Amino acid sequence: MEASKKEPLVITDKEQMRKWSRAMRSQGKSISLVPTMGYLHQGHISLVREALKLTNLTVVSIYVNPGQFAPSEDLSTYPSDFHGDISKLMSVPGGVDVVFHPPNLYDYENDMKRNKNDQGVSQEFRGPVFFRGVATVVTKLFNIVEPDVAVFGKKDYQQWRIVQRMVRDLDFSIRIIGAEILRDNDGLAMSSRNVHLSAEERGKALSISRSLLGVKSAAENGHINCRELRDSVIQAVSEAGGRIDYAEIVDQESLQAVEEINSPVVFCIAAWFGKVRLIDNIEINL
Amino acid sequence: MEASKKEPLVITDKEQMRKWSRAMRSQGKSISLVPTMGYLHQGHISLVREALKLTNLTVVSIYVNPGQFAPSEDLSTYPSDFHGDISKLMSVPGGVDVVFHPPNLYDYENDMKRNKNDQGVSQEFRGPVFFRGVATVVTKLFNIVEPDVAVFGKKDYQQWRIVQRMVRDLDFSIRIIGAEILRDNDGLAMSSRNVHLSAEERGKALSISRSLLGVKSAAENGHINCRELRDSVIQAVSEAGGRIDYAEIVDQESLQAVEEINSPVVFCIAAWFGKVRLIDNIEINL
Repeated sequence: MEASKKEPLVITDKEQMRKWSRAMRSQGKSISLVPTMGYLHQGHISLVREALKLTNLTVVSIYVNPGQFAPSEDLSTYPSDFHGDISKLMSVPGGVDVVFHPPNLYDYENDMKRNKNDQGVSQEFRGPVFFRGVATVVTKLFNIVEPDVAVFGKKDYQQWRIVQRMVRDLDFSIRIIGAEILRDNDGLAMSSRNVHLSAEERGKALSISRSLLGVKSAAENGHINCRELRDSVIQAVSEAGGRIDYAEIVDQESLQAVEEINSPVVFCIAAWFGKVRLIDNIEINL
Repeated sequence: MEASKKEPLVITDKEQMRKWSRAMRSQGKSISLVPTMGYLHQGHISLVREALKLTNLTVVSIYVNPGQFAPSEDLSTYPSDFHGDISKLMSVPGGVDVVFHPPNLYDYENDMKRNKNDQGVSQEFRGPVFFRGVATVVTKLFNIVEPDVAVFGKKDYQQWRIVQRMVRDLDFSIRIIGAEILRDNDGLAMSSRNVHLSAEERGKALSISRSLLGVKSAAENGHINCRELRDSVIQAVSEAGGRIDYAEIVDQESLQAVEEINSPVVFCIAAWFGKVRLIDNIEINL
């Protein structure tokens, strides 16, 4: 007989979420948050396992954030499988406590009406339309869930670092954990988007992880000129049929491009294979 | 004999501040925050009195935020009188519980070094230098003090609205109160900066509040053309020797300029008299 599995409490309402969290904290429980966009795979599950080690309680949020898509990508084709996600979470030993699944985090009245036009006015009047994209939705989730720890995957390397920086700059009392990239056996970084790759495209997309590994060992063998290293990756991925969006070697903390590798860097790449935009990266610690 | 006065606890350390706040909240106490830049006058005291009505405990922060100064103003000449501030707060019936007076809210190592150059890079790499100005320092204070209520003066009208908007957009669980402008008997809006006005400049500066009151009654009498109303204020203040920085009639919520007054607006003005930049505003509720 199978061990009984823990069914998470599903919360869709902001106020309910905050209420749960405050009730738990008033009982002295610590809480971790794993923000996701759903369609969970083993990569997400590894973040959940990480979270389970760190706090008494674990919240997984499932929310597709419009701000996280490139302009040319279609939000409506982002895959989702809520019931599949729940059963995957239930299969994790220990289980998660809450799945926070809000329908819309931006449901304010009259929003669109009021803010069509915020150009051509002085700084003090430009005001209310500052808040966009990843930093916004993460801040919202932090303010709703009020966790002690939040776990992000290093696959979205810049996102992880931006959140880490934001938490420091804005004095959030939340510990940010970066969890390592999980890869399939062939080396492809796990992603909800991989499901859209044809078998052929998938084969070609392996050029990404292969060339990143190549760059890492080249750097470790003394090839520290970033232009040459970038060119080798761009060439390999392009020859395999990928369309490069960006390929940059940047400082691990500042995310500023470097010319030579003399300190810890990360090679970040985004490339299209067919209609799928893939991202990947590799840390190089020289 | 004078009634014994409550001496506030002075906290300068972020972590101590948050610890105090969490300890109080775990005892079921509600907390309000009155953010100030110090050099307190009756205007601030009216915010404190407002706060005292709303929650069990009151925190006044005293912190001069570099982001809140116009480029041409000198931060170093901003007046301060910490001991005077404490005794003014002690004279408020009921008193305040904590004065939070951090030396520097931006004391991170290596900050300056790392972020000299964030131009000319793609969106994902621009990353960490998003956070500036009023919204930043208020967010930091919110995340450190973790209040239930925060009281802002309507004198900084745009600031109040921006904070209100930010709290909604970022799902902070904090109620934002706007307190009315306090004026001296001659009508001048109270400000820490007034101390820098000569007697003559002060006399001239009264043109601001006088012309705002004039506009309000004109509007109430059917003069709703904003260009004409603005011009009358600009003319009156300029003739008195003021140098207009801006003079705008804007929607109370969106802060967007309007051409005719058909809904609640606010006339906001900033003008220099000598070396002093004064701001004032008046709500017109048609």
